Amino acid sequence: MLGTGLIGLFYTRTLHGRRGRDRVHVVYSRTAERAEAFAHENGVPNASTDLEQAIAHPETDVVVVGLPNDVHEQAIELCARHGKAILCTKPLARNADEAKRILDTVEAAGLFGGYLEDLAYTPKTLKAVQAVHAGQIGDVTWARSRETHPGPHSAWFWDRRQAGGGAIVDLGCHCIEIVRGFMGKGNRPLEVFAWIDTLVHPIEAEDNAVCLIRFESGALGQFEVSWTFRGGMDLRDEVAGTEGTIWTNHFLRTGFEMFSSGESGGYVAEKAETTSGWLFPVGDELSELGYVDMFDDMFGALDEGRAPRETFYDGYVVNAVMDACYASGASGKWEPVRIADWRGGTTERIARGRRERDGKTVIKEEQMPDGRRKLILKDEASGDFSDVVAGV
Amino acid sequence: MLGTGLIGLFYTRTLHGRRGRDRVHVVYSRTAERAEAFAHENGVPNASTDLEQAIAHPETDVVVVGLPNDVHEQAIELCARHGKAILCTKPLARNADEAKRILDTVEAAGLFGGYLEDLAYTPKTLKAVQAVHAGQIGDVTWARSRETHPGPHSAWFWDRRQAGGGAIVDLGCHCIEIVRGFMGKGNRPLEVFAWIDTLVHPIEAEDNAVCLIRFESGALGQFEVSWTFRGGMDLRDEVAGTEGTIWTNHFLRTGFEMFSSGESGGYVAEKAETTSGWLFPVGDELSELGYVDMFDDMFGALDEGRAPRETFYDGYVVNAVMDACYASGASGKWEPVRIADWRGGTTERIARGRRERDGKTVIKEEQMPDGRRKLILKDEASGDFSDVVAGV
Amino acid sequence: MLGTGLIGLFYTRTLHGRRGRDRVHVVYSRTAERAEAFAHENGVPNASTDLEQAIAHPETDVVVVGLPNDVHEQAIELCARHGKAILCTKPLARNADEAKRILDTVEAAGLFGGYLEDLAYTPKTLKAVQAVHAGQIGDVTWARSRETHPGPHSAWFWDRRQAGGGAIVDLGCHCIEIVRGFMGKGNRPLEVFAWIDTLVHPIEAEDNAVCLIRFESGALGQFEVSWTFRGGMDLRDEVAGTEGTIWTNHFLRTGFEMFSSGESGGYVAEKAETTSGWLFPVGDELSELGYVDMFDDMFGALDEGRAPRETFYDGYVVNAVMDACYASGASGKWEPVRIADWRGGTTERIARGRRERDGKTVIKEEQMPDGRRKLILKDEASGDFSDVVAGV
Amino acid sequence: MLGTGLIGLFYTRTLHGRRGRDRVHVVYSRTAERAEAFAHENGVPNASTDLEQAIAHPETDVVVVGLPNDVHEQAIELCARHGKAILCTKPLARNADEAKRILDTVEAAGLFGGYLEDLAYTPKTLKAVQAVHAGQIGDVTWARSRETHPGPHSAWFWDRRQAGGGAIVDLGCHCIEIVRGFMGKGNRPLEVFAWIDTLVHPIEAEDNAVCLIRFESGALGQFEVSWTFRGGMDLRDEVAGTEGTIWTNHFLRTGFEMFSSGESGGYVAEKAETTSGWLFPVGDELSELGYVDMFDDMFGALDEGRAPRETFYDGYVVNAVMDACYASGASGKWEPVRIADWRGGTTERIARGRRERDGKTVIKEEQMPDGRRKLILKDEASGDFSDVVAGV
Repeated sequence: MLGTGLIGLFYTRTLHGRRGRDRVHVVYSRTAERAEAFAHENGVPNASTDLEQAIAHPETDVVVVGLPNDVHEQAIELCARHGKAILCTKPLARNADEAKRILDTVEAAGLFGGYLEDLAYTPKTLKAVQAVHAGQIGDVTWARSRETHPGPHSAWFWDRRQAGGGAIVDLGCHCIEIVRGFMGKGNRPLEVFAWIDTLVHPIEAEDNAVCLIRFESGALGQFEVSWTFRGGMDLRDEVAGTEGTIWTNHFLRTGFEMFSSGESGGYVAEKAETTSGWLFPVGDELSELGYVDMFDDMFGALDEGRAPRETFYDGYVVNAVMDACYASGASGKWEPVRIADWRGGTTERIARGRRERDGKTVIKEEQMPDGRRKLILKDEASGDFSDVVAGV
Repeated sequence: MLGTGLIGLFYTRTLHGRRGRDRVHVVYSRTAERAEAFAHENGVPNASTDLEQAIAHPETDVVVVGLPNDVHEQAIELCARHGKAILCTKPLARNADEAKRILDTVEAAGLFGGYLEDLAYTPKTLKAVQAVHAGQIGDVTWARSRETHPGPHSAWFWDRRQAGGGAIVDLGCHCIEIVRGFMGKGNRPLEVFAWIDTLVHPIEAEDNAVCLIRFESGALGQFEVSWTFRGGMDLRDEVAGTEGTIWTNHFLRTGFEMFSSGESGGYVAEKAETTSGWLFPVGDELSELGYVDMFDDMFGALDEGRAPRETFYDGYVVNAVMDACYASGASGKWEPVRIADWRGGTTERIARGRRERDGKTVIKEEQMPDGRRKLILKDEASGDFSDVVAGV
Repeated sequence: MLGTGLIGLFYTRTLHGRRGRDRVHVVYSRTAERAEAFAHENGVPNASTDLEQAIAHPETDVVVVGLPNDVHEQAIELCARHGKAILCTKPLARNADEAKRILDTVEAAGLFGGYLEDLAYTPKTLKAVQAVHAGQIGDVTWARSRETHPGPHSAWFWDRRQAGGGAIVDLGCHCIEIVRGFMGKGNRPLEVFAWIDTLVHPIEAEDNAVCLIRFESGALGQFEVSWTFRGGMDLRDEVAGTEGTIWTNHFLRTGFEMFSSGESGGYVAEKAETTSGWLFPVGDELSELGYVDMFDDMFGALDEGRAPRETFYDGYVVNAVMDACYASGASGKWEPVRIADWRGGTTERIARGRRERDGKTVIKEEQMPDGRRKLILKDEASGDFSDVVAGV
Repeated sequence: MLGTGLIGLFYTRTLHGRRGRDRVHVVYSRTAERAEAFAHENGVPNASTDLEQAIAHPETDVVVVGLPNDVHEQAIELCARHGKAILCTKPLARNADEAKRILDTVEAAGLFGGYLEDLAYTPKTLKAVQAVHAGQIGDVTWARSRETHPGPHSAWFWDRRQAGGGAIVDLGCHCIEIVRGFMGKGNRPLEVFAWIDTLVHPIEAEDNAVCLIRFESGALGQFEVSWTFRGGMDLRDEVAGTEGTIWTNHFLRTGFEMFSSGESGGYVAEKAETTSGWLFPVGDELSELGYVDMFDDMFGALDEGRAPRETFYDGYVVNAVMDACYASGASGKWEPVRIADWRGGTTERIARGRRERDGKTVIKEEQMPDGRRKLILKDEASGDFSDVVAGV
């Protein structure tokens, strides 16, 4: 386990939680104090401040990279040198070039590279993606992923040099992969438009962004990220299809509501703003935010010799989309997503149905408040539209 | 009452509902059959198929225009000629040029022009706007308005020639005015970006669009419209501010939930898709969708000689924003909103706060899961960010 | 308008609100100061501290009784003496004997007696009752009405001598009438069981109660009232039927959600506990809590010479049910509801369906997770139950 | 694993799911066909139709009893004879006498007895109970647990002889233990009142019941069970405390909402009624319904030599409460809960606070709509209550 920040803690608690088989054997941190405290609190036998030593440790089968974005490449190179399987936190890198080098390094070394995109693994997302791919909502026309909170927990996130960007790099990477999951991973993200601004915080990186992604099928992906949201952590996804709709809410409205006058304190949930008034805790954050299913897939894939759901290639695509977002933020227009080796094939455009009646195109058929049925027809020759009201 | 479509019916039921003082005296429709049926069903004493006659009728003090978009200008010119006060349904016109001519005609004649934008008047919206302007959520940074359903009720909506466009003209006009309400009407909409597509229906007009509006304060307005949504009518607004958040839901989740096995039928709500399974009716559509408060404001303004909340000038601004949406949809980049005579003054950019501690900029202060407090500081000289963890 | 408390204010604002025809001409309060302040603030031309004078005032057509419970009888007797139509707030009286005397007085005088049970008139309740009576959820088997908040606004509510009881009299009267609406008013409440306790406040009256009402159809009504609820005002109803379910929420979750860091104050909603954190305002309290539709029905009934939805007889039945609650609280067993002249006829017991297959009773038919269909059958001769799994 | 019904399947999937250490080695069913099919589908190495053989199997360390209620005692006696640790599904027995014999048998044999009450282990319930015990909602005054659906999956549930009862035994056992969790397990259930009826199904067992439980602290537990609910599976809990409120929803409203026009099928969730229209799936049923945390606690307790959260003694208390429910259903009055050896100690009554001001008892302090503060005071000598309105 490389890194002892919040993400390292969540990863370790997930691995050690419940009746799991998998254990953290070595933990690395830049400072001895944090490495040892973390090891002690989480029952990890070895602590180290030497990155290579931690990676090369004989007890280490798999390296989990939970470090700041600017250190991913170095850590993964060391993993490749020592032939260790790698699980890397999101985003894979600060930009697509860096991500591509990481991808090439790991593929050249023939190593396992799992991309730890937890929100692609929440139980709701997994089931929703399954429903979409089973056709339950028809062709996807639009997907929205929203991830906002009042700002990240560690200093390096706020430093554009270390992180590679601001709210897009921190939160948008989740959204992009959630949206790709609904669109189908073979559905190529063609171009991107982004509004990017720094409205509230005294930083250079963006604290708010809204980005649109045009996919090859014609469908639109949309994501909204913010480091200035008030009220907790807002994680919501919406999918529209030709035959249905899906809404998932991962945090603020999950069927757990509590009011407290505030006579007592205590930790409520990640990024909750208050400990009194109406509160919206999450039952089991590690499970509901996807950590449990993510590691299950990763270690299962390792054991079975198959690729996990989220690979380093996916991480590279995410970085390519984010690069296009920043390009669009600067140019004010759609910017192409530059992916060096697209592996997803091609996707046909959403088919527009056309039904006829009496030689005219049926535009709509519906029930009126008074019970009558109304038909809206189009005469393709004249271009005229007409209402035809039928009896009850 | 000009027009006997769904909107004319809603207007008339609102005016005649409850203990109201105001009555519809004349109803106009293109066909005698519909005019008479409408008059009979709604207790209207006079029915006419002659537009000018209906307007000029001696019992007519106020003309309510509930006609297709392409007939607004003609009807309003007739009103001006006969010196009648005018309430016109949304949108005011098919484009900004037409809207400007209408505005000029009415202002030149010195007549009352009320813009019937019902969704700016829903009780939730009124209270939310009041909360925003009272400062309860600080400076608004972002507002989203979403209006989607499976497509409109009358043929002319689908005909781009008559309507002036598709889902943007039908639904976006609501969203723009809702967003302007939250932003403050003096906050100028500077430029617009739009994704526009026809994904499902066999028509030329757009059936899906997502549009972004940059306001002078730096805040972003965002709206999503669709004629292909499945599941009913989705009317939701979200506002983010530096000190708070507002979410309103006008239709599908309003605290009224019903499951029916479907043994019995009956009208559930406007644009509901089914009459069995889980249904989400609205208590009183006319009140909750703003019709009651809208006419209260309009007739109150007439009586008191003041301007209503929503004027023809507002209608013109909405058309100008929509024109910019279509321009952006074609150009693929931000397009300026061209408003001939901006009456709203100027708005300052959202202020970015900056707090110091030990000579450094405080980026964030937060509570850790273990109860400790963490401070994130920035050294403005070096540009470095650092974490400082304080005791419990 | 007799009374200048919160209820008098709500009534007056409703009557004067929007484009209404009806006006308050005289207001009565025990103190001149309050009467005059109220008259001034609400545009009422006459203020009085003389109850009989206010009632007998020549401008008074209809008397609205918004006084403490112990003064209803006296006020209504004065109305009867002066031949005025009467609208009386809930509950009608402190107990069934007092209610019966009031009812007899008004009926003997041949006067209009409207029972101002606002929560029977909320738009959601009206539509839900309509759906129930249209058969959309089949036979009602159970209805729950819950009304809880942190305690009433005026001193007299807390005084059992003046109010006639505690939370049951204050809140249960609403619940009973809501439940009766769903059950059908002809469905006789036969007996009642109640748990009653004073858990938190230093008073003699109950601050918490849960009561069950057995109706003639076999259905169960259930209500929960509390003066110790934390988090605002919780008004929810649930109805279960053989073919469906209805849930209504009138206050805390109505599709209007707001987070405020609390930098600014302001009134949020009746009985809200805080002005920061997550808040749940109601769009338009007067409309959503039923006041508008209630007065519409009352004045409409007066104009049309018909009975309103809620009459003094209904108020008497409510008092009879509450008396049975107190009797049961004391005896710890079911207590009969004693209604002197039941006017509702008789209601048959909910019919239990029975379907046969292969000579056995079909108990259930369902789909298994794996897609197969399972039938549960009962052999009436042996009393044995068996599973029969059919193919997919 | 004894039993191959739905519960046996859920248990086995939980144990085999994710990266667990624990495996099912032997499965027992009455018919060889089902035993073998289950073993095959779930990767269980041994299948048996001989109960004792399955229990005595050398690979069996722990026996999981997932059999009909009338076979629990026999199975557990066999476990005791063979000295195996036992995990028994809920309810422990058909009545308290049977439960007491089971408890005595296991305790006499000195064996581990874990009571598989999954809903006491849902992540939301665990966190809510923790919040309650941390004092975040003050003293609990009331708790409601509701569990309703359209009826159980297997024939034996419907047979009162095998099950010991109807909806109370099937569903109420969950509710009782959820309520006890919130009240504190040391808080003795003193007496019970129950309404019990068979309204819809052609069976002898009850298909609907509402039960009240008086605890020693004065708090009221309340549960509602039904086999006639329409709309899916309704699992909701509510807790009221002197300082707060908790609402949990385990099934129909958990932040996962889907509309499908129904063009495609597929299993949505346990006891969902439809596969089209608005659907409310659960992300991960096994985790969100408590199975994962339950087995984690059970096997953890076994490994660590401690008692699990839910023991056979708890199961016995649940049966004692249910016996009192049936007694009360017959007698129509409160019936005592007869527990032979209460191990929970005593609990004090909820304390009623009392604050003074100017020699009077403060009943309430609140903010008026106009911003003023109102104090309600009681003069203990005269018993009079008065309003005192203070300035803004």
